[in-house]
Amino acid sequence: MNVSTSLRVRLPAFVFVLEVVMIALYAVFVTYDDNANAKMQNNETNPMDNSLYRDYPYFADVQVMIFVGFGCLLAFFRFYGFSGMVFNFLTATFSIQWAILMQGFFQFYYNGKIHLGVINLLNAEFACAVVLISFGAVIGKTGPVQLLVMALLEVPIFAVTEWAVLKYIRINDAGGSILIHLFAAYFGLGATFVLYRPSLNKGHAKEITSYHSDILSVMGTLFLWVFWPSFNSALTLKGDDQHRAVLHTFIGLSSSTITAFALSAVFNKRGKLTMADIQNVTLAGGVTVGASVDMMISPVGAYVLGIMGCTACFFGYRYLTPFMARRLRIQDQCGIHNLHGLTGLISSTAGICAILLATEETYGPSMYQIFSHRAPPEGDPKLLELQQLIPGLKPGLGRTAKEQALYQVAAIFATIAVSTVGGLLTGFVMNLSFMASPSDEGCFNDEVFFDMPSDFDSAEELKTNMSSDEKLEMSSTNSKV
Amino acid sequence: MNVSTSLRVRLPAFVFVLEVVMIALYAVFVTYDDNANAKMQNNETNPMDNSLYRDYPYFADVQVMIFVGFGCLLAFFRFYGFSGMVFNFLTATFSIQWAILMQGFFQFYYNGKIHLGVINLLNAEFACAVVLISFGAVIGKTGPVQLLVMALLEVPIFAVTEWAVLKYIRINDAGGSILIHLFAAYFGLGATFVLYRPSLNKGHAKEITSYHSDILSVMGTLFLWVFWPSFNSALTLKGDDQHRAVLHTFIGLSSSTITAFALSAVFNKRGKLTMADIQNVTLAGGVTVGASVDMMISPVGAYVLGIMGCTACFFGYRYLTPFMARRLRIQDQCGIHNLHGLTGLISSTAGICAILLATEETYGPSMYQIFSHRAPPEGDPKLLELQQLIPGLKPGLGRTAKEQALYQVAAIFATIAVSTVGGLLTGFVMNLSFMASPSDEGCFNDEVFFDMPSDFDSAEELKTNMSSDEKLEMSSTNSKV
Amino acid sequence: MNVSTSLRVRLPAFVFVLEVVMIALYAVFVTYDDNANAKMQNNETNPMDNSLYRDYPYFADVQVMIFVGFGCLLAFFRFYGFSGMVFNFLTATFSIQWAILMQGFFQFYYNGKIHLGVINLLNAEFACAVVLISFGAVIGKTGPVQLLVMALLEVPIFAVTEWAVLKYIRINDAGGSILIHLFAAYFGLGATFVLYRPSLNKGHAKEITSYHSDILSVMGTLFLWVFWPSFNSALTLKGDDQHRAVLHTFIGLSSSTITAFALSAVFNKRGKLTMADIQNVTLAGGVTVGASVDMMISPVGAYVLGIMGCTACFFGYRYLTPFMARRLRIQDQCGIHNLHGLTGLISSTAGICAILLATEETYGPSMYQIFSHRAPPEGDPKLLELQQLIPGLKPGLGRTAKEQALYQVAAIFATIAVSTVGGLLTGFVMNLSFMASPSDEGCFNDEVFFDMPSDFDSAEELKTNMSSDEKLEMSSTNSKV
Repeated sequence: MNVSTSLRVRLPAFVFVLEVVMIALYAVFVTYDDNANAKMQNNETNPMDNSLYRDYPYFADVQVMIFVGFGCLLAFFRFYGFSGMVFNFLTATFSIQWAILMQGFFQFYYNGKIHLGVINLLNAEFACAVVLISFGAVIGKTGPVQLLVMALLEVPIFAVTEWAVLKYIRINDAGGSILIHLFAAYFGLGATFVLYRPSLNKGHAKEITSYHSDILSVMGTLFLWVFWPSFNSALTLKGDDQHRAVLHTFIGLSSSTITAFALSAVFNKRGKLTMADIQNVTLAGGVTVGASVDMMISPVGAYVLGIMGCTACFFGYRYLTPFMARRLRIQDQCGIHNLHGLTGLISSTAGICAILLATEETYGPSMYQIFSHRAPPEGDPKLLELQQLIPGLKPGLGRTAKEQALYQVAAIFATIAVSTVGGLLTGFVMNLSFMASPSDEGCFNDEVFFDMPSDFDSAEELKTNMSSDEKLEMSSTNSKV
Repeated sequence: MNVSTSLRVRLPAFVFVLEVVMIALYAVFVTYDDNANAKMQNNETNPMDNSLYRDYPYFADVQVMIFVGFGCLLAFFRFYGFSGMVFNFLTATFSIQWAILMQGFFQFYYNGKIHLGVINLLNAEFACAVVLISFGAVIGKTGPVQLLVMALLEVPIFAVTEWAVLKYIRINDAGGSILIHLFAAYFGLGATFVLYRPSLNKGHAKEITSYHSDILSVMGTLFLWVFWPSFNSALTLKGDDQHRAVLHTFIGLSSSTITAFALSAVFNKRGKLTMADIQNVTLAGGVTVGASVDMMISPVGAYVLGIMGCTACFFGYRYLTPFMARRLRIQDQCGIHNLHGLTGLISSTAGICAILLATEETYGPSMYQIFSHRAPPEGDPKLLELQQLIPGLKPGLGRTAKEQALYQVAAIFATIAVSTVGGLLTGFVMNLSFMASPSDEGCFNDEVFFDMPSDFDSAEELKTNMSSDEKLEMSSTNSKV
Repeated sequence: MNVSTSLRVRLPAFVFVLEVVMIALYAVFVTYDDNANAKMQNNETNPMDNSLYRDYPYFADVQVMIFVGFGCLLAFFRFYGFSGMVFNFLTATFSIQWAILMQGFFQFYYNGKIHLGVINLLNAEFACAVVLISFGAVIGKTGPVQLLVMALLEVPIFAVTEWAVLKYIRINDAGGSILIHLFAAYFGLGATFVLYRPSLNKGHAKEITSYHSDILSVMGTLFLWVFWPSFNSALTLKGDDQHRAVLHTFIGLSSSTITAFALSAVFNKRGKLTMADIQNVTLAGGVTVGASVDMMISPVGAYVLGIMGCTACFFGYRYLTPFMARRLRIQDQCGIHNLHGLTGLISSTAGICAILLATEETYGPSMYQIFSHRAPPEGDPKLLELQQLIPGLKPGLGRTAKEQALYQVAAIFATIAVSTVGGLLTGFVMNLSFMASPSDEGCFNDEVFFDMPSDFDSAEELKTNMSSDEKLEMSSTNSKV
């Protein structure tokens, strides 16, 4: 066992320092938002109108996705189940409390305070999802201190990108295809590029699954699948927009799922199904509908997007991931580039098409709510006219469809650029010598970081159960998430 | 390994053809319903009044039941966990997208379009539940292509039955005891009758559970148990009706659960508990309260129904299932006839009693909402009188309690007849030679359809762990779902 | 195998007798509350205002915690997974139906009837949580009949305590730190004191975990973690109070979780993480914020409480639990005293501080809603003044902050006293000879109460996999829940 992986000093030091910092920052900056503040309640407040009841159901669903869904999905390695599930728990918890502060400073800060409500928690869970997706690229070859450092750096970089894109470029991205999935994918690729381990390209004896870890991982997939409509619709406008987001996500996932089964069978020599496909490729549709999830893309549009995303994702796993590992020194352990990057690009493109095709004929006047930057600016007589049809319509920027489309393109490139650079820098920090990184030998092995129960004996089981040929065969089917 | 079980051509062919068909049908026929259509929003629309907020919470709960609950429950075989969980995933996904179309044509079709909202998804999940219940009868001896074919045929037969019963016979069946459970049970029996395999009556060496598969299956039971009140109340009238449906379902499940434990112990020679009882019989109460779940049956009524359903279900597993297998050539693998058929019959009978006993004294004027077919017809002066008490009461058919009861009886027989015949026909199609059906040898074995992880070795484990006596003993305790 | 553990007569006898009693009591006493009663609906009733829609989402979340969360968490023993999960199922189901009656008589009884709605079920699930926490103290050394007897006695003792404290002492305890957690912890300690088994102090060969049982148990923790905000906020006032309860619970759990990881690493000789800490200590923050969860303790207050509770809980597991077992004959199997007792005491103290510090400046006039006993009594002119600011404010007792604090102290001592005595008495009854208690040998072994699948062979596996040294080492790390 490599002595340098002991967490005895490093992990507590990190946690306790950060806790002191957070206590200071929470004490000075964080207060309640009006919906959570007793003082703001008066005789005109109806308790049932509290924002809690609009946000909490979606928050609860996303909670299950983050902690149970991701947790089970990432427990797919045979000797790395503790690590997958438990590091996910640790990283997620830390990311959320850190994101409350970081996003708070950028998005919820006024009168010298961050105003906290369940809506902040929901936003913070999305920031957390970003970190967990990036985690997928480096799972197995990183320790908990490295992951916390990744979260420590990724969350503020994400928060500033999110803020800049939403405030200055101003885009439509209800399901987060650009800001969440593309950001997370390229950040993860940047980090894993720096953490490149040549020896792992030959396959690692422990880089395998087991019967139980595969089932556990499918359970994670199912929890993500089931609640994905809540994820994609959580931050849309209320009413018909959110309704469409639910429909499109469900339909996209559905078509993506059956496509994944078909592709899995057709590209298997013996015509069998591969669990890694079912654990990952089935979910591609959820990402692919993201950028246009609240638009009038029509049900069949969502269906086709699901198939397209799934297909890209499947071939990404098959050809692109091995290529990147061998030629570009990018070891994308779970293939996040396929599930979040390629699908994110398709989704962003579809979003641009939907923006270009949007007309008042299809959307009615509420087009200026969904595409809020296309609403006429303050003072424009058309604004007053529209406000009679839609009371409360906010003035926009008066952009045309083409202008909005160009801003979307700008946001895509900006996000990819910032996240890649951020990932590279974060990778360098994660690679510093006192980060308790496991040795090449110790990768994919719970024993490095956990006290193990007595029935766990990775070495012996491996000897008994498999020949070295099998090892190599197995390790090539393991790209996940 | 039997070459004919390769999915390489068959599964993709089925999926891709169906996808083309669905894209065409979705493109031509499916549009948004008013609650999901941006154009329908105007200055009188309150976004929070969108039907999404009434339907989505129930939809989300049913999602968990369908994908996680059924998925885990059906993963109870030791060497068939991948298949149980993953075929459930595939079949469910396909069934829902197909049911959106089929039910759409019958129930949501006007102006030449199927109007899509979350309420359609919810209805489609019920159609999907029907398919998954029937799946329970043939699990272990069918492949994924056969299951997709089953869904392909069962969904439209179900949709047309549902439509005909609701439109022409017009019954009360809020929890779906007749339309969901009876239909699914007898359809499944019909199909399994055709798929009869004499050799399986002697027990199959792999028809056993393992420690982990039993625990996984109980988890599935728990997810079904926990969300069953949402299942039974999802389609009731809002308000007190839905409230009662939640209460009755919970109480019925509760009494059924403790009864199942007691019966399990009393009929075990050594006074021990049998996991198959806990996985299945505990749930009987949820079905048994179904047909009368929104009526004023009183809490004690639900309690007694739970006990009755559980008892019938338990003895069904013990005596009826083996009898049907040996004498009637009906191999009901999971005993769906006990959990859904017998309980469905009790439930239907209880529903009829509740209808016969319903009086205005107990229900007040809202009796004519719950038993909407008993409301006075258009033009009847009593209707106007009632509409003053209950604004928005719709005219009915002016049926008496006895008339309504007779229609319920008619619906029960019609449903059983159609579903049995439909199941038989479907069984014949599933039995065609190019359906990649596993050989008798290959039943209950994941290896036939999946690339397996290296720790899976069904043959060896069996040799080491059990004598042939044990095999037979085990296989007799395996009836589930 | 000890013959006396057969459930063949005892379990059914218990269940059937209780069912007869319950049918009689439900028939005579239980009716619908107004929100579930068809007769109470009239032309002024808006179905969407039904209390169902305020209560059911929280009820559903708590359902998952009780059945799935606790069920998985308690399945942490290697050879006791069936028992942990299934006895939890049985005990919970029985407790809830029994609590509906017991709490019904004390809290929902008028006009000679118990009025039943989802709110009763929610309250009953809290009573059930009390029983399940106490179960944690005696898990492994008790059989199902003993557990049902425990529930039979604990539920009414809890119901009467709850009623007396809420009606006569009148306290603030939204998250149930006093009434749920302290009660459950000291009741459990009382019972386990009577059930003391000297031989278990040396460690039991089967008192160990396995790789899969540890993962299953973490899943249980995650489900509890994810839905804990619903648990703590379910019974608060609606609006900003409930909003704060969600925020505080989430923040408290977050800080508690990262602290648990840090402490786990720092106190492990080899700097590794211990799964038992992650399964249990992470949750301490949820209990610790309980008593003040709806007050204006500020976000940083919740953060600090999470750290404090976690620290106390961690050291409790490390030093107090072994001490109690060796010196005080209190074998607290899962360490419920750490997770519910110590944290409950900190929480109660924090609640008292929050009460003493509460001012109108911070809370505005709604202070008299949260601290309802501080509202001016009927007839006080200040009441009329306040009612203009907050319509519907109910008259209170006119207590000062200090008076309320003293009542809180009284409630804490009263609750601990009653629960300890109740636990001792219940322990005596559980210890009676016909309760099918397992022998010392048969502890922590599913085989005693279940028909086991053929791959379960506790004896053989133990021989193969571990030396006796390992056994002792393992058994010392097993305190949970």
